[in-house]
Amino acid sequence: MYFCPMINQETIVALATPSGAGAVAIIRVSGKDAFAVVSQIFQSISGKDITKQKTHTIHLGTIREGTKIYDQVLISLFRNPNSYTGEDVIEISCHGSTFIQQQIIQLLLRKGCRMAQAGEFTLRAFLNGKLDLSQAEAVADLIASDNETSHQIAMQQMRGGFSNEIGKLREELLNFASLIELELDFAEEDVEFADRSQFKTLVERIEFVLKRLIDSFALGNVIKNGIPVAIVGEPNVGKSTLLNALLNEERAIVSEIAGTTRDTIEDELIIDGISFRFIDTAGIRETNDVVENIGIKKTFEKMDQAQVVLFLIDSSTLNVSRIEDLKIEMERIKNQYPLKTLLVLFNKTDLMTADLMSNLKSQISNSLFISAKNKSGIDELKNKLFSFINSGVLRNNETIVTNSRHYDALLKALEEIQKVRWGIDSQLSSDLLAIDIKQVLYYLGEITGTVTNDELLGNIFANFCIGK
Amino acid sequence: MYFCPMINQETIVALATPSGAGAVAIIRVSGKDAFAVVSQIFQSISGKDITKQKTHTIHLGTIREGTKIYDQVLISLFRNPNSYTGEDVIEISCHGSTFIQQQIIQLLLRKGCRMAQAGEFTLRAFLNGKLDLSQAEAVADLIASDNETSHQIAMQQMRGGFSNEIGKLREELLNFASLIELELDFAEEDVEFADRSQFKTLVERIEFVLKRLIDSFALGNVIKNGIPVAIVGEPNVGKSTLLNALLNEERAIVSEIAGTTRDTIEDELIIDGISFRFIDTAGIRETNDVVENIGIKKTFEKMDQAQVVLFLIDSSTLNVSRIEDLKIEMERIKNQYPLKTLLVLFNKTDLMTADLMSNLKSQISNSLFISAKNKSGIDELKNKLFSFINSGVLRNNETIVTNSRHYDALLKALEEIQKVRWGIDSQLSSDLLAIDIKQVLYYLGEITGTVTNDELLGNIFANFCIGK
Repeated sequence: MYFCPMINQETIVALATPSGAGAVAIIRVSGKDAFAVVSQIFQSISGKDITKQKTHTIHLGTIREGTKIYDQVLISLFRNPNSYTGEDVIEISCHGSTFIQQQIIQLLLRKGCRMAQAGEFTLRAFLNGKLDLSQAEAVADLIASDNETSHQIAMQQMRGGFSNEIGKLREELLNFASLIELELDFAEEDVEFADRSQFKTLVERIEFVLKRLIDSFALGNVIKNGIPVAIVGEPNVGKSTLLNALLNEERAIVSEIAGTTRDTIEDELIIDGISFRFIDTAGIRETNDVVENIGIKKTFEKMDQAQVVLFLIDSSTLNVSRIEDLKIEMERIKNQYPLKTLLVLFNKTDLMTADLMSNLKSQISNSLFISAKNKSGIDELKNKLFSFINSGVLRNNETIVTNSRHYDALLKALEEIQKVRWGIDSQLSSDLLAIDIKQVLYYLGEITGTVTNDELLGNIFANFCIGK
Repeated sequence: MYFCPMINQETIVALATPSGAGAVAIIRVSGKDAFAVVSQIFQSISGKDITKQKTHTIHLGTIREGTKIYDQVLISLFRNPNSYTGEDVIEISCHGSTFIQQQIIQLLLRKGCRMAQAGEFTLRAFLNGKLDLSQAEAVADLIASDNETSHQIAMQQMRGGFSNEIGKLREELLNFASLIELELDFAEEDVEFADRSQFKTLVERIEFVLKRLIDSFALGNVIKNGIPVAIVGEPNVGKSTLLNALLNEERAIVSEIAGTTRDTIEDELIIDGISFRFIDTAGIRETNDVVENIGIKKTFEKMDQAQVVLFLIDSSTLNVSRIEDLKIEMERIKNQYPLKTLLVLFNKTDLMTADLMSNLKSQISNSLFISAKNKSGIDELKNKLFSFINSGVLRNNETIVTNSRHYDALLKALEEIQKVRWGIDSQLSSDLLAIDIKQVLYYLGEITGTVTNDELLGNIFANFCIGK
């Protein structure tokens, strides 16, 4: 279990850079004794006493214990409150061997630091008021972001976009709440300090914003987790050729810069920052060898997991008389999966007669004509895939909710604000109204961390990496 | 092929931290335009112009292009010559997502930087006189060091221990060489500016030091690459139990600190900083199931690769009459592998009679009595393994050669200095003596990089990681 060290003053240490060997590694030390501890093991090349040096300065020297020299390092000094955590922080930039990293961390532990828990630096930043809770969560999202869109959303959230929006609404609501609380003190006199019609306008505005944010989560979720896509069809219709045609370019771009190549994500296509993940495509590639009835079972399993189904058909095996069969089969899929987006792809269209094509176009809706082998129709397919997303929000630079914790809190806040609106309409007494308003304030506060508790913080920060 | 950019003034960029996601990543920029390039994409939070800031200071701000914000970062400024490379250097400390790393590096490339080649930062440090060549090589060794001893040797070398020793000898020799060159100018007059007996003393001293350094390479090589050990014996004598008993503790220590755990190196035992690598131990573990004649073949393959052979015997199957057979078998191994160290281990000695044990002790030399299962005799075995190494040099803190390039140069220098000594003894003419001296100077100079060429530098730095 994650131990949430709320009032913990200990000086903590962790490796901040990825583990493994590299040119440079950063060891981060934070806490009230950071300078005292590091000054015991660091000897400046010019003999400077680091405890007397200014914040935001860098010093060359050696890490040593007695006569034993561990490494030549640079240390960066950050004085409270001008640091990431808001505490005194020293970052030691050492040579990147895992042995050296380990030795220096062990030395710091011997000198009285303790290992930081996952996310503890960011937790301290939150507790010291450097970040609110949704900003802190955005730090983890930012580190995990692997495409343009998720990166931009995390940046916006980290820079306070989301918190500001929630925070302002909460503040306005809080003002009304105080007035209504005041009414309670004068309950006998039957006064109304809070103008009910103004109040109703605010409540409706909050409801509107909450609904918009809740709606944005569908897109936010897509941005964060991608859209699962299944390519189905009979053996030899060209499924793997299609997949290769879709993925080809992207892969080349990813591996362009030496030293920054990320782990290859198999069968993921990113269109304008939205990830389309092809489900169990290894399985698809193997279906050629599988007897028909097993093949069909596999196909349904794939469709179960998908949000978009690409139904690939070999046009060269088609003729006008088969069109009816095809329509029946499509109907069957649509009935079984009414919520999934189905797109029919006629492959190998280079071999198709104009007559057949015009017949298909008129009779089969939501279809595309492609040639996976010649890569014709692939761009249209990509545009079509992207069009399945409600990307208008994205273009308008609106706040998008990607965090399911926020989504839950927003749903609960919406439920409560609707009770408040109903209360106003039914001229509910101030004391009952106040209870519902408090609930809204509570849930909105949970998002930004104005309202918090150990368990909540524990859940959030346990998912961070150590060193952050 | 590695292109060695000797007089290259371009501004280079690379990721300096290990690739992959972590809390923090460092992007390093070095070259004359480092400040100009970074100032185009960095906006300080307090509006400062970084081109006007002091060296060794840190600044918070955002990396941006137009209105698009890539990340909030810290940048560390190092002004020429007070930087790692001796050039203007800026280190950008960004959030550790691979996406962000890639984006910022790509942005820097668009602004006119180019990707650094492997080791190019250190190459520039060498070209700018911040390090000599053996020190530069020690940087790579330091990063690769994975135990106490190799780390200490690399540290000593990086701090100039080895270069100083070679450099001083070379300088003294150079003085004599100048005097001898001078003699050439006065060849007609038959003068001797260089005192031959003083000169001979120096030459003998150089020869002595070179020999010591060359001898140290055997140990240096062991320290760098470890000692291959084979455990051989019939099936079921307890090979894997012995291996586990040897390795147990070490493994626990390695994984003690979260976040710094290095990749597990299978079946490596480190005793006082010396690595003993057990060869193909997976194979050993499988031999139980293998028919005898294949088992023996595998055993010989293992012995071929090993430097130390542990010959494990199940004592419970022994009796006095089998001792003769055992002696014959050992003789056979010794004849086949005269250069390998053979140690006989009598396992399961808890079941052995005192009579048999005393018999074995008197008849079988270089043997130990152990019980792998009860872990008795394991410490004695470790001490014995360590005793196979000439570790005296280690304890005396003498310079140890670990680099095979240095070893080659030392061998060549020794050969030439021996010619010089022979030349002095045979009263060779100054002009011929001068040629041999030049050769010694050349090879010694190659070690520290006083003498160098593109190919040599290319070979050395191509083995560095990018970002160093």
